[in-house]
Amino acid sequence: MGVVVNIDNGKREGASIKELIGLTAADMGRVNKLILSKAGSDVEMIPEVANHLISSGGKRLRPMLTLAAAQMFGYEGESHIKLATSVEFMHTATLLHDDVVDESGMRRGKKTARMIWGNQASVLVGDFLLGQAFRLMVDVGSLDALDILSTAASIIAEGEVMQLAAAKNLETTEDEHFSVIKAKTAALFSAAAEVGPVIAGASKPERAALRSYGMNLGLAFQLIDDALDYGGNSTDLGKNVGDDFREGKVTLPVILAYRRGTPAEREFWKHSIEENVSDDAAFEKATGLMARHGAIADTIGRARHFGEIARDALAPLEATPQKAALIDVIDFCISRVV
Amino acid sequence: MGVVVNIDNGKREGASIKELIGLTAADMGRVNKLILSKAGSDVEMIPEVANHLISSGGKRLRPMLTLAAAQMFGYEGESHIKLATSVEFMHTATLLHDDVVDESGMRRGKKTARMIWGNQASVLVGDFLLGQAFRLMVDVGSLDALDILSTAASIIAEGEVMQLAAAKNLETTEDEHFSVIKAKTAALFSAAAEVGPVIAGASKPERAALRSYGMNLGLAFQLIDDALDYGGNSTDLGKNVGDDFREGKVTLPVILAYRRGTPAEREFWKHSIEENVSDDAAFEKATGLMARHGAIADTIGRARHFGEIARDALAPLEATPQKAALIDVIDFCISRVV
Repeated sequence: MGVVVNIDNGKREGASIKELIGLTAADMGRVNKLILSKAGSDVEMIPEVANHLISSGGKRLRPMLTLAAAQMFGYEGESHIKLATSVEFMHTATLLHDDVVDESGMRRGKKTARMIWGNQASVLVGDFLLGQAFRLMVDVGSLDALDILSTAASIIAEGEVMQLAAAKNLETTEDEHFSVIKAKTAALFSAAAEVGPVIAGASKPERAALRSYGMNLGLAFQLIDDALDYGGNSTDLGKNVGDDFREGKVTLPVILAYRRGTPAEREFWKHSIEENVSDDAAFEKATGLMARHGAIADTIGRARHFGEIARDALAPLEATPQKAALIDVIDFCISRVV
Repeated sequence: MGVVVNIDNGKREGASIKELIGLTAADMGRVNKLILSKAGSDVEMIPEVANHLISSGGKRLRPMLTLAAAQMFGYEGESHIKLATSVEFMHTATLLHDDVVDESGMRRGKKTARMIWGNQASVLVGDFLLGQAFRLMVDVGSLDALDILSTAASIIAEGEVMQLAAAKNLETTEDEHFSVIKAKTAALFSAAAEVGPVIAGASKPERAALRSYGMNLGLAFQLIDDALDYGGNSTDLGKNVGDDFREGKVTLPVILAYRRGTPAEREFWKHSIEENVSDDAAFEKATGLMARHGAIADTIGRARHFGEIARDALAPLEATPQKAALIDVIDFCISRVV
């Protein structure tokens, strides 16, 4: 696959996740089979609810990270398939619970499970998938991998509670916000990437490289996601532009626009976010204020910053197709918005 | 402590959990400290929500089972403290999620966390505690214990979904109902008891004995709980008599009264359970019908049956104070209702 490499900074123009998809295709076939099998249960409602979300066309980026990170260090066993499945189940469980917490109606362009089967089923099937995730990890038998992933599970929940506690708080600082997204999003990217070298028996610096890559990629990914909610294409995004605004979520574009705003503009934000006056006219005004203050551009700038750190985390590692593919992922994540 | 032993069947009159409490008191002191420490977080809402339930005076029967079962086989390390804490966290997480699923207002005589902090916090703090439970297990480092407890986590969630799917279904058979309570309640009792011998390096038959004891004790415990909801003292129970009826739960007393009822009585049950006409007058009628058909007495009879199996599961084991205390627990659980 011909790719133009810019020699100055190693960035690839037109980066995509095609390389990553290609390298992990065979393994992902097995992951997808294992997902279907382990989401199965004699209790019919479980596969129904689980498969609604599982089959809704997520990119499965996190399990691909685990697979590529294991391949990168020459891993040849079976455990990466199980851990990748485990990672995807942790992610799916989080989405099911998130939709309940956020009272979301749509996810990936489909009705959320809670709209079809109710909050109860979403909570419980999420719990089931989390249980299955742990069983898969135990099956692999690596205490290091178990430690990394179980720690991530606690941290993700902690991040979600942090986000809930800070909900509608426009005084949230940028640092506080980074703590939230580091925990709720980046921790799983980091764990997904790190367990690859762990099961491959890679060195400590190699583990640290993949952990840092995952963490910083996750931060960039979340920031771009937050930027996309104020522009971009609703079909690509799988959610509707303006969802965060309507739900009164305090994401980085809002934090920047609020901090940089005039007193009158801050009143508008309080009205919109805290009192939930978030109709189409308010949304249009919000995006206008963001443009005026460069809030979206600078959110993307922050994402690039983390993307650079992710790239440099991998720099000392030997050149492999996996390394190149993982670097492409950074540029892909960021270029989604451009 | 003087206890009258009936030589015929090994049952103790006036059995209590005092012996179990006494034997595990020192260890439980350490478990309680670990609970407070591991429910801690810089995210203030987490210890607030967690401690509301943790400090609400549950009996902590499950962690005591783990401790006594470890002591019974001469275990002398630290891991039983961590596993007992892990078991209590799994239980607490389940209660937090259950209250959301059942839309419960009261638990152990106090407002539920969801009434104070909302459903969102209950879901997420439950997830956090589950994550912490797994971290404690990983810290212990026994793959066997991890296998037992992570399998229990999946099974519990499966049981909860089964219960949700069967909600308000008066045609639920007794066998189906046993499958539900085996999964949602007894599986954790069983796992809590089995991990004791596992970390103590006991033999396979010893593990199987404790596993079977826990499973059957859990079934008896749940059936008595269901009987108590139609009589008994609301303070002892920590919930209000009639809660299950008002929530339209199909428990064994209802299943038996419905099956044995006249066509007119079955109409009453459909009206009450399926259409939620469950005021005080309806509740009085319900208890009257249960009395007429011996539904409560036979629910207790079924509980005794499982209690006998639990007792016989321990029979081959050497006589120890722990064994005697665990047998007392069976009689205590059943005598709660008499």
